[in-house]
Amino acid sequence: MPELRQNLITRDWVIIATERAKRPDQFAAIRTEAPPIPCYKEDCPFCFGNEHRTPEIELLCLSDDRGWRVRVVPNKYPALSCLGERVRKTEGIYRSMSGVGIHEVVIEHPRHDITIALLSIPDVANILNVYRQRYRDIRKDPRIEAIVIFKNHGQEAGTSLEHPHSQITATPIVPSQIRIRIEEAIRFFDDMGECIFCRTLAQEMEAQERIVFESKHFVAFIPYAALSPFHVWIFPRRHTSSFEDITDVEILDLAYTLKTVLAKLYYGLNNPDYNYSIRSVPTRDGQTSYFHWYIAIIPRVSKSAGFELGSGMYINTAMPEDSAQYLRDVQFVVTNEDANIIKLLTGKEK
Amino acid sequence: MPELRQNLITRDWVIIATERAKRPDQFAAIRTEAPPIPCYKEDCPFCFGNEHRTPEIELLCLSDDRGWRVRVVPNKYPALSCLGERVRKTEGIYRSMSGVGIHEVVIEHPRHDITIALLSIPDVANILNVYRQRYRDIRKDPRIEAIVIFKNHGQEAGTSLEHPHSQITATPIVPSQIRIRIEEAIRFFDDMGECIFCRTLAQEMEAQERIVFESKHFVAFIPYAALSPFHVWIFPRRHTSSFEDITDVEILDLAYTLKTVLAKLYYGLNNPDYNYSIRSVPTRDGQTSYFHWYIAIIPRVSKSAGFELGSGMYINTAMPEDSAQYLRDVQFVVTNEDANIIKLLTGKEK
Repeated sequence: MPELRQNLITRDWVIIATERAKRPDQFAAIRTEAPPIPCYKEDCPFCFGNEHRTPEIELLCLSDDRGWRVRVVPNKYPALSCLGERVRKTEGIYRSMSGVGIHEVVIEHPRHDITIALLSIPDVANILNVYRQRYRDIRKDPRIEAIVIFKNHGQEAGTSLEHPHSQITATPIVPSQIRIRIEEAIRFFDDMGECIFCRTLAQEMEAQERIVFESKHFVAFIPYAALSPFHVWIFPRRHTSSFEDITDVEILDLAYTLKTVLAKLYYGLNNPDYNYSIRSVPTRDGQTSYFHWYIAIIPRVSKSAGFELGSGMYINTAMPEDSAQYLRDVQFVVTNEDANIIKLLTGKEK
Repeated sequence: MPELRQNLITRDWVIIATERAKRPDQFAAIRTEAPPIPCYKEDCPFCFGNEHRTPEIELLCLSDDRGWRVRVVPNKYPALSCLGERVRKTEGIYRSMSGVGIHEVVIEHPRHDITIALLSIPDVANILNVYRQRYRDIRKDPRIEAIVIFKNHGQEAGTSLEHPHSQITATPIVPSQIRIRIEEAIRFFDDMGECIFCRTLAQEMEAQERIVFESKHFVAFIPYAALSPFHVWIFPRRHTSSFEDITDVEILDLAYTLKTVLAKLYYGLNNPDYNYSIRSVPTRDGQTSYFHWYIAIIPRVSKSAGFELGSGMYINTAMPEDSAQYLRDVQFVVTNEDANIIKLLTGKEK
């Protein structure tokens, strides 16, 4: 019989299709033979040497003696306008607002043919550093209520540009999806006197069934009621409400964790398309006892939108415990550069 | 500047991309030359003559002297099991439940090559009649909390079977998506003393800007804060909480309305893939003052899941007012059979 599980953080119920569940390796992406991706493309606006093809304003640039490593530029086709004020209007019961906000692109690397799963840990740390700096700058904007950092990898995940990049959006309202999570977290805190994310983490650590990877400061696991196959959450062990609070040491450790999880997906599921997003408390809420920032990674390995849209419920055709076991077992070669950093972070030889 | 609008019924904020908005006709589906669909396929389990290919139990069959017109059978690969009891379990803070429930398939017509947009009004009424009868039967099941009727048309909408069909799911819990709508509706009723759906309908009737089609008992319109292009809601004018309360006269009128709206999508947007769903109050809530059943039709004419998943906000690249105008203007030929029924329903010649 299928099993229904409730995702405590979103309150969604998901059907875990125990009987129809596929084997983990059946979710691997099927890729048709394609020409290899070149390391530079003349018409790619994000490639090294093509900086003139991006908007003139450079919001942030992280460089070393090799040139720039990570750049942030305004989105050329922004969903929200960075100019103007928040103006509310009502028409009868309807409410609208001027579409002000921030929409930036983080160009993750000068090379066209790379992806986070294959980057060195220091390169991933550079990206995370840039995320943190932009977060800290953007939150000073009084028009902003919430900042979400996200990445679309591959066409199924909604990107049209091949060059590795992520996006930062800052909205003049709190999206209802975030508001619902906050409300649930407050209710749990009121009832139980602790953070629902901390409690979830403690229970996962005890059960050990759904853990994908652990580092000193982070734990990556498949949620008990994962809404889709191989959905992974990365939680910081230290309770803090916003990504901007991350320390330098934690950034390096998160780079190690994120790269490891994405590499496990890359090698275990044949470079699947995926989205990830970094969720924090709304900018004005500051440090709270009830909300805990986290990263959600959603591989696009199954399609089932019809049932979900219709019924309001999710079906997951992978057992969270089996998916976690499968990812735990994926091994990959670590470069010497990364091995030295891992030794530094863990005190152990890899 | 883009405009943010709030969808009062879901509380989602949507970005109406006023500047980047496409012209309505740019959303038409692009279909490559394909062989015409045959009216019968030997290996199709839903075709007339192939009844032995569906599960043995026939839940409902509506026939006339031509043979069966609409059949209901159990889903061969049900997401929920129809046998067994609701058994709750907890593991620490986690909650789970046995996956009992109902998952049925409504075979809408004996012919393989047809779609609701092209069916006669009486044929559509047959389908709606069957929906109502199954709804009334299923709600007697004490394990059921919510019943959702939905349809996936085309691959983008999540179906793999070409033969026209829809699905009925009945769940042993109330999906959080429905619960959120209920909570909003209750809050509006407490604040304003009226049903949010009735109020929305009154405002749309007054504005007239987003109306797609009106019949005696139903109004089809594009929501003020439509989450995606050409999203259409059909609201009954009479306040009632559940689809099962629909009368025979209203069924014929809804058949006219649904067929007309789907035909406008079919001809105006080149037979786009779409989902629709019929949402009612949870089965135990009975007749309420705050909730109003409705149909949501979501054409799958744009892809933008990356931004939505990441930011929790929607982007709509079509102006609701323009989309409504476009659909209002789509004309199509009405058969004599339908013309007679329309005359009966409206008192006017068509």
